[in-house]
Amino acid sequence: MKKISLLGATGSIGLQTIDVIQANKEMFQLQAFSSGKNLEQTRKIIDALQPELVSVQDEQDALQLAKAYPTISFVHGAQGLIDVATHPETTILVNAVLGSVGLAPTLAAIRMSKTIAIANKETLVTAGHLVMAEAKKYNAPILPVDSEHSALFQSMNGENPKNISRLIITASGGSFRDRTRAELKHVTVKDALNHPNWSMGAKITIDSATMMNKGLEVIEAHVLFDMPYDQIDVLLHRESIIHSLVEYEDTSVIAQLGTPDMRAPIQYALTYPERIPLQNSQRLSLADIGTLHFEKMDFKRYKALQLAFDAGREGGTILTAMNAANEAAVAAFLQDKIGFLDIDEVIERVMHEHQTIRQPDLETILHVDSETRKQVTDMIK
Amino acid sequence: MKKISLLGATGSIGLQTIDVIQANKEMFQLQAFSSGKNLEQTRKIIDALQPELVSVQDEQDALQLAKAYPTISFVHGAQGLIDVATHPETTILVNAVLGSVGLAPTLAAIRMSKTIAIANKETLVTAGHLVMAEAKKYNAPILPVDSEHSALFQSMNGENPKNISRLIITASGGSFRDRTRAELKHVTVKDALNHPNWSMGAKITIDSATMMNKGLEVIEAHVLFDMPYDQIDVLLHRESIIHSLVEYEDTSVIAQLGTPDMRAPIQYALTYPERIPLQNSQRLSLADIGTLHFEKMDFKRYKALQLAFDAGREGGTILTAMNAANEAAVAAFLQDKIGFLDIDEVIERVMHEHQTIRQPDLETILHVDSETRKQVTDMIK
Repeated sequence: MKKISLLGATGSIGLQTIDVIQANKEMFQLQAFSSGKNLEQTRKIIDALQPELVSVQDEQDALQLAKAYPTISFVHGAQGLIDVATHPETTILVNAVLGSVGLAPTLAAIRMSKTIAIANKETLVTAGHLVMAEAKKYNAPILPVDSEHSALFQSMNGENPKNISRLIITASGGSFRDRTRAELKHVTVKDALNHPNWSMGAKITIDSATMMNKGLEVIEAHVLFDMPYDQIDVLLHRESIIHSLVEYEDTSVIAQLGTPDMRAPIQYALTYPERIPLQNSQRLSLADIGTLHFEKMDFKRYKALQLAFDAGREGGTILTAMNAANEAAVAAFLQDKIGFLDIDEVIERVMHEHQTIRQPDLETILHVDSETRKQVTDMIK
Repeated sequence: MKKISLLGATGSIGLQTIDVIQANKEMFQLQAFSSGKNLEQTRKIIDALQPELVSVQDEQDALQLAKAYPTISFVHGAQGLIDVATHPETTILVNAVLGSVGLAPTLAAIRMSKTIAIANKETLVTAGHLVMAEAKKYNAPILPVDSEHSALFQSMNGENPKNISRLIITASGGSFRDRTRAELKHVTVKDALNHPNWSMGAKITIDSATMMNKGLEVIEAHVLFDMPYDQIDVLLHRESIIHSLVEYEDTSVIAQLGTPDMRAPIQYALTYPERIPLQNSQRLSLADIGTLHFEKMDFKRYKALQLAFDAGREGGTILTAMNAANEAAVAAFLQDKIGFLDIDEVIERVMHEHQTIRQPDLETILHVDSETRKQVTDMIK
């Protein structure tokens, strides 16, 4: 029985993690989880899986839940996330929270040598150097949950990493892939949230439309697999069937494919190195699909991807600035405060003005993060 | 330094094996090889790689070469193949001969616990049960050289074979893939030898057009990977870029891709589990290729493939009968003695008349092989 801590249980990845756990109760036990403010969903998860520890965002909610469930411990806030991540009985932490709040609990779990199944891009993007150094020190495996990184990871199974010549990350192109940049000026939030292949949260869907999602994935791949940026390519592949590919120095390419279903990489991170049947899933039939398309990535069309590569190559705090600027800009777009193309512009301006600090510690990263958010708020007033 | 024995050096796979060895002289040494009657090519290989032992088909040729190369040992005939395969200093045997002559030397090398890089389909098809049992007993690794089986093998790297749900072997469709069965009646040898993707020998090119090549590969995959026939699929994929795929029970599919180049799987068998750069090779660019196509396999259009599945499911000596009938029928087609569609008819008739013996020993297999060839000769008189 694998005992699991889950951060971000009521988000898109979190709920699919719950699905996987629920479908395999003889194998997995949800020991502790965190959710935000969605109490209805929180109660449903508690009722279904009877965890020992639950963390919510607000103290009031924690107190209210504690009355309803007297045998369960409730905590809250930033410390609550750490309590969930470091629950002494769990061996694996699934980090599916959005944003930089995932950083401190991840580091805390790493220091307890837990396996980290990471869906929280921001942790690796802003503090990749800290996370990987600690993971190495405490012998804590970092397993990707993202479909692309899971595909890369699966395509490296049994291989010597020294023989890898290139990582090729596929990108569906997002909800606006068939529009020119000029046509993007007046697109609405509703347009953007209509992603063709994957069912995801709002923030990630916007990131997918700007391609910043792919940019964060490139940085994440650089961190997770210790691969130089010149050896990471992005390939436009509208069907999202090939989830990513690894090229080896003998020109052989290994790829992982599947019907788009986030539960597959989530479950793989939980069962690795084994595999188990995925409940209610659809087998891939390439004959039924018939055709797969591939196109070169256009870095002018997808400016955010270029910015992410630029930030990645520079390294240090500009990664935090870029990520915070993106989070703030996407939030502003979702609130109709700025236009779609303004997201790139905000990020570019923040990066342009940023003075990079190399090898930042956690405090510096969190400081740059909050300062950048203030800067963006001022910028779009 | 890996010391190599090579059977069938002057054939298509053999020459490409020579290429790989020559490009990596600091890593590989050709210690012994066999060739048939092509003395010019045999001399070239001797001059380039200075082996210790060479076997040719005829005694006269061996004597002639011995005069020209007094420091090299020359042998000939069936025993010559065994001498090459069992050369005491070599650790790996590349078996690239065509036909059932590859069987006895393979078994001899297995009994010396050498690694067998096998491109000789007939050995596995007709005597798979003997070969795999001996390989297990003598702890001799059997590594595939065929691009499809190498792809399957590479797609299983680091995986638990128990988690495999399906092997998916891709097929280009051969030189006549865009013709209906009715249109095949009067195709010529010249038409058939014009294969779109791979540069191969004449026999394999015809097998590729009838799809018997794929049928033999299905049987080979069954033997090599101990997979039931119901879990082996064939997928039409005209570009030959995805060389084959392995589906796991979590619906995840791992595939191996590359520009069609037989040297890649040959080299992989020689360097496994490592990889080294492939000289003068072309990296795969999916963006340049643009589109990959997949179609369901039509077992009526490709009757030989159905016959191979039928023979595989029955097992025993019918595999030898099917294979010998195919070899004899293809030879007759190449000599303009029968038409293209007659190849399938000959195989079907032989299979229909065959009385299967289960778990045949080597003697029985060789007997069925020669009897079947006689039967086909009589049939097409």
